[in-house]
Amino acid sequence: MSTTSINGEAYTDQESDTIPLLTSERSNINSTSQVAIVGANVCPIESLDYETAENDFFKQDWRSGGKIQIFQYVFMKWLLCFFIGLIVSLIGFFNNLAVENIAGLKFVVTSNMMLARSEGNSFNLVLFGMAFLVFSVSNLILTLFASIITAFIAPAAAGSGIPEVKAYLNGVDAPGIFSLRTLIVKIIGSISAVSSSLFVGKAGPMVHTGACVAALLGQGGSKRFRLTWRWLCFFKNDRDRRDLVTCGSAAGIAAGFRAPVGGVLFALEEMASWWRSVLLWRSFFTTAVVAIVLRALIDFCLSGKCGLFGKGGLIMFDVYSASVTYHLTDVPPALALGVIGGIFGSLFNFLLDKVLRIYNLINEKGIVYKISLACAISVSTSCLLFGLPWLASCQPCPSDASESCPTIGRSGNFKKFQCPPGHYNDLASLIFNTNDDAVRNLFSKNTNSEFQYSSILIFFVTCFFLTIFSCGIVAPVGLFVPVIVTGASYGRFVGMLVGSHSSLNHGLYAVLGAASFLGGSMRMTVSLCVIILELTNNLLLLPLIMLVLLISKTVADAFNGNIFDLIMKAKGFPYLETHVEPYMRQLTVGDVVTGPLQVFQGIEKVGNIVHVLRTTRHNGFPVIDEPPLSESPVLYGLILRAHLIELLKKKAFMSATVPTSIDALKLFPAGDFAERGSGNGDKIEELRFTEEEMGMFLDLHPFTNASPYTVVETMSLAKALILFRDVGLRHLMVMPKISGVRTSVPSVSFSKILPVD
Amino acid sequence: MSTTSINGEAYTDQESDTIPLLTSERSNINSTSQVAIVGANVCPIESLDYETAENDFFKQDWRSGGKIQIFQYVFMKWLLCFFIGLIVSLIGFFNNLAVENIAGLKFVVTSNMMLARSEGNSFNLVLFGMAFLVFSVSNLILTLFASIITAFIAPAAAGSGIPEVKAYLNGVDAPGIFSLRTLIVKIIGSISAVSSSLFVGKAGPMVHTGACVAALLGQGGSKRFRLTWRWLCFFKNDRDRRDLVTCGSAAGIAAGFRAPVGGVLFALEEMASWWRSVLLWRSFFTTAVVAIVLRALIDFCLSGKCGLFGKGGLIMFDVYSASVTYHLTDVPPALALGVIGGIFGSLFNFLLDKVLRIYNLINEKGIVYKISLACAISVSTSCLLFGLPWLASCQPCPSDASESCPTIGRSGNFKKFQCPPGHYNDLASLIFNTNDDAVRNLFSKNTNSEFQYSSILIFFVTCFFLTIFSCGIVAPVGLFVPVIVTGASYGRFVGMLVGSHSSLNHGLYAVLGAASFLGGSMRMTVSLCVIILELTNNLLLLPLIMLVLLISKTVADAFNGNIFDLIMKAKGFPYLETHVEPYMRQLTVGDVVTGPLQVFQGIEKVGNIVHVLRTTRHNGFPVIDEPPLSESPVLYGLILRAHLIELLKKKAFMSATVPTSIDALKLFPAGDFAERGSGNGDKIEELRFTEEEMGMFLDLHPFTNASPYTVVETMSLAKALILFRDVGLRHLMVMPKISGVRTSVPSVSFSKILPVD
Repeated sequence: MSTTSINGEAYTDQESDTIPLLTSERSNINSTSQVAIVGANVCPIESLDYETAENDFFKQDWRSGGKIQIFQYVFMKWLLCFFIGLIVSLIGFFNNLAVENIAGLKFVVTSNMMLARSEGNSFNLVLFGMAFLVFSVSNLILTLFASIITAFIAPAAAGSGIPEVKAYLNGVDAPGIFSLRTLIVKIIGSISAVSSSLFVGKAGPMVHTGACVAALLGQGGSKRFRLTWRWLCFFKNDRDRRDLVTCGSAAGIAAGFRAPVGGVLFALEEMASWWRSVLLWRSFFTTAVVAIVLRALIDFCLSGKCGLFGKGGLIMFDVYSASVTYHLTDVPPALALGVIGGIFGSLFNFLLDKVLRIYNLINEKGIVYKISLACAISVSTSCLLFGLPWLASCQPCPSDASESCPTIGRSGNFKKFQCPPGHYNDLASLIFNTNDDAVRNLFSKNTNSEFQYSSILIFFVTCFFLTIFSCGIVAPVGLFVPVIVTGASYGRFVGMLVGSHSSLNHGLYAVLGAASFLGGSMRMTVSLCVIILELTNNLLLLPLIMLVLLISKTVADAFNGNIFDLIMKAKGFPYLETHVEPYMRQLTVGDVVTGPLQVFQGIEKVGNIVHVLRTTRHNGFPVIDEPPLSESPVLYGLILRAHLIELLKKKAFMSATVPTSIDALKLFPAGDFAERGSGNGDKIEELRFTEEEMGMFLDLHPFTNASPYTVVETMSLAKALILFRDVGLRHLMVMPKISGVRTSVPSVSFSKILPVD
Repeated sequence: MSTTSINGEAYTDQESDTIPLLTSERSNINSTSQVAIVGANVCPIESLDYETAENDFFKQDWRSGGKIQIFQYVFMKWLLCFFIGLIVSLIGFFNNLAVENIAGLKFVVTSNMMLARSEGNSFNLVLFGMAFLVFSVSNLILTLFASIITAFIAPAAAGSGIPEVKAYLNGVDAPGIFSLRTLIVKIIGSISAVSSSLFVGKAGPMVHTGACVAALLGQGGSKRFRLTWRWLCFFKNDRDRRDLVTCGSAAGIAAGFRAPVGGVLFALEEMASWWRSVLLWRSFFTTAVVAIVLRALIDFCLSGKCGLFGKGGLIMFDVYSASVTYHLTDVPPALALGVIGGIFGSLFNFLLDKVLRIYNLINEKGIVYKISLACAISVSTSCLLFGLPWLASCQPCPSDASESCPTIGRSGNFKKFQCPPGHYNDLASLIFNTNDDAVRNLFSKNTNSEFQYSSILIFFVTCFFLTIFSCGIVAPVGLFVPVIVTGASYGRFVGMLVGSHSSLNHGLYAVLGAASFLGGSMRMTVSLCVIILELTNNLLLLPLIMLVLLISKTVADAFNGNIFDLIMKAKGFPYLETHVEPYMRQLTVGDVVTGPLQVFQGIEKVGNIVHVLRTTRHNGFPVIDEPPLSESPVLYGLILRAHLIELLKKKAFMSATVPTSIDALKLFPAGDFAERGSGNGDKIEELRFTEEEMGMFLDLHPFTNASPYTVVETMSLAKALILFRDVGLRHLMVMPKISGVRTSVPSVSFSKILPVD
């Protein structure tokens, strides 16, 4: 029996966009063949393995153990979820606290300096210059700090981290994304980047932080620091770690937006490639912990013990108005917003993709270039933030304003900026503010006449482009909040255009605008809908929000892909889609396997193994029993590279091809074959062997996964893709249909080695 | 090569609870063997097939066609979703309108009759008796009507229908659940059952209605009524129909509770066994249509054009209070509610299961018994509803009541019943009311002193038991609303006990109580959470609701399974869980296959086929090519029973075992092999053959699925179950590991029949 194996690691070819699954280079239908690993030329990416390796060791595993082990496992899993929720909510709280205090202090100081000027009512260039200097220098220092720690300590912490986590959950492990170092840089860097008044968000980094916390907790402590716990060994496999990371990313959104249900749905809709119903339940538990802890902490802050933080409750942008009524006449503007959101969203994705590619070229030149780029963005942002409000004319304060007008200092609407008493600068209320406050001002109700057309327009253009240019800098920066701000600004603009023809408040138009831009760039449906509901506490708008999201996603999908997928592609992470392309129905798996096939004998020469491991990058190899071990050549199973390396390290070699009395199972404790933490695996290049050892043999049978998934070579690529994706495979063996009878010598029974009769 | 096949149809054995997947009766490890079909002895259940049958016909399928076909397919799928949403929302609206008008009219008439009495201030037995007579007789008539149409016209419409739809989405098609007749009876029966003041809900029947609409739309019209459209032929397969039914059930919840996001999540969490991300997007679209249409219709009704209906908006129980604040001191009562909910929920499930089993015994005796049972329940309910309020003493109206007190007539709080002017009967406010109004009263804020302990307790006990006894009657009755009422009542009771120690309103305790009882009996997490949010528009309670749901589900899971699964089991529907039991890791698939294996040759005698089809109930058969057709015995693929019957019907037989010039592909248009509507398949017993025909041959190759899923016999049952469930299989071929070389004669090449070389 001849065997063919697809060993394609679920990699997409990032050079050619046409054939995502596997390259098609099959030369001869009868030759044994194997697919070359394509992709992964940008950074050394590790693949994850979600298949249960059913070798003899697995039978010793805890899973086959008694009730106590199973109880320990289940208990530990829930306990870990609890700790993920607890730690992520603490980080999220600390993050908010730090940002609001740092950024708030900056705005208070700067505003007060300008206030001193404007109270004198004469244009004092020195005071204004000093205020600008304080503002821009503090921003520059914060940005510099964020980019320096990112560039030098943990480059994997740059960006939002959502594409990396999404790629991980699809089965690709980028180096260092889940290290302790990355986690710390991510938290601190995100705080300083967001505080530096860049148009960047903190929700994306929170997702990465959550995933990172989960991965670190699940890794079972650190061997280096002697922090290990026996009970944690249950999680030393890719499957359980993937579940924890999914819960962690849900907790991240829950903590970032204080949106627990939205977090679960975000993890389900956007992040996870494989989902089981028990995972829904577990991630819900995790985000419930986040919600309860956050609620308690915010409760504590409401009494004013948290400095400048503490005005918001669990709802970030609470613009609820009990009297929301809308009629059929409000549907056309909502439709228009959907279409605009779709167009702007896809344009945003397109431009961001281009800018990221240009930034990549700059960043490749060296760390100094990276950091200079970040500084340049920071300085230009400071200039725009300080300069643009001068373009807007001062407005007299409305007599019926529910808030104080003008506000001086940090939070609130109706910023004074350079205006005389009793007046406010509407553009400054938006732009010379934290992003959160800008959103709050845009969403605010009963302020229909607050903003001028020109101010909103200037703000929208500034947001749109600054977001695009800020996203790619070397610091932990997210996209959610800037996208919400941008969307809210054009939403409010549309609301002002529609004016009195609509029964809706302009603040509600801003909410719909934010929904449309989120839908147009991120292309989620249910999760965005719930996140917007949880952000704004406005359930009555639900039908309109659903409508807007549907239309913006549909329109934008006609142009390009979702933003995270584009970034993932730009970063060179392979991603296996669930979607079946029509051409896949025409090809069979037999058409796409390529050679030469690398197989091992059941009892294989050490030299051969070392040679094959050194010359290929495959992660698994078929094990074949050939005569005289069996009647005719027969596929025994699949052995993984990691297990082979572990075997070679132990050097439990045999001198001949006959089974010896070495009881392999006793020699290797099961823990040796457990999956290491991310990126900690041994390399074949590090192992050294003598000439004598190279001539000895290894019995691979006890270590081989004896029940790999196989398909017949006539199966269509489409059907194989469904199997690959639905079950979460990394290897798939392709069997020929015909039983090629190569030999018919009488069989020699090695029943001791071959438990299969 | 010998072949073994698991042909177990994903059936669970409903007699023995121990081995869910397959019976284990393998006599001899080397013999070819096949699993007997277990289960399905309660009613003739059809299984569904979600695997793509890749035979020669499939290559002619539209999927392999041009862009036009693919566009038609995608367009039709969205169009169907739109129509599902539209029709379901219209039905849901009509349902609400009818119920509120019928039930409302009944209460208005009865109350007015009693009012006439009480205004005279003397106890007028005649008037009271007349009021009771009108009330109970109208209830009896409505119940009788519902049960008669259900029993005589469409027995499949009885109950909520959620277990049936859930079983369908798991791959089991009960007869008649998706017929037009069932749909009509479901709608009308549900309206009259709910209007008859029984403790039954209308949300469950709405789910079934939605699924039914989806299945009927997807069936591609009716051949009998000549309503067919060529474009609908795309949906003549189980896979697409399953997707539509999932969207339909989401639309059902969306229309029943006016909870569009909750509907999507309900379908995802509770109903669907297989889920793809594109389905999330499509079901979201469907429920968005429901939300928008419902919103427009309710908008229309707000102007008072819908009779007694029209008070509610899109939020059914709008108890929002902007000033919800709660502190850590409110957590212990919430925890207690969670525990109580878990205990009551599992007790409820336990009792309901027992009562349903008793009812089954009664119902088996005949239609008269069924209908009498329904009538008995109706009469006792009427008596309780009319009698119990006399146990409560009249309370003086609060001076600060936001509503009029006492209310006379239908809607509102503070029912007058028998009380003197200026007083109200608190028990009557709950029990002598529609369920929706009872919930509204329990959830209402600022009414902390409205209810007495005794009244709430009486109401809780009545609800709890009446719900259990009403659920099994032969009428379309749901469970959601009664469960919400029951939970709200003990929630309010706990709130009253906690009293002033808590900062929470009693109405909010009722919401938490409803959440806990829902969680305890239905065991959902995210979907229930969102449904409760959408029902009550109270996002600030989110952390507490999550906490309560988590605890009640955890506590209840310790005792028994979720209510729908219990009903499904009682009804005898097999259900394949995703969950892997520990023992499954010990067994291999080779251990559980049973014999004898029924295989067909690639070119098979008609008599053999007819005999095997008549004597077995397997749905698929392995096709083997043996010498001289091939070098050695080789598995060609899997042929389905339905396709074999279609072949036999056409009688395109050959006279010899050599390939003839009959071009099978031209003889059979692809439509002949499309899946029929539910339960419309032909039976082998209906076909007749002459002696001569029985001796002829059939070439099965073009009709055989040449790429079935196969596993090696050493694979553990756990791993095979994951494959079975994740990919949605119905058949799985088990291959032996050893290539049993039975013959080595020189091969005769039949390359024309065997495209595989």
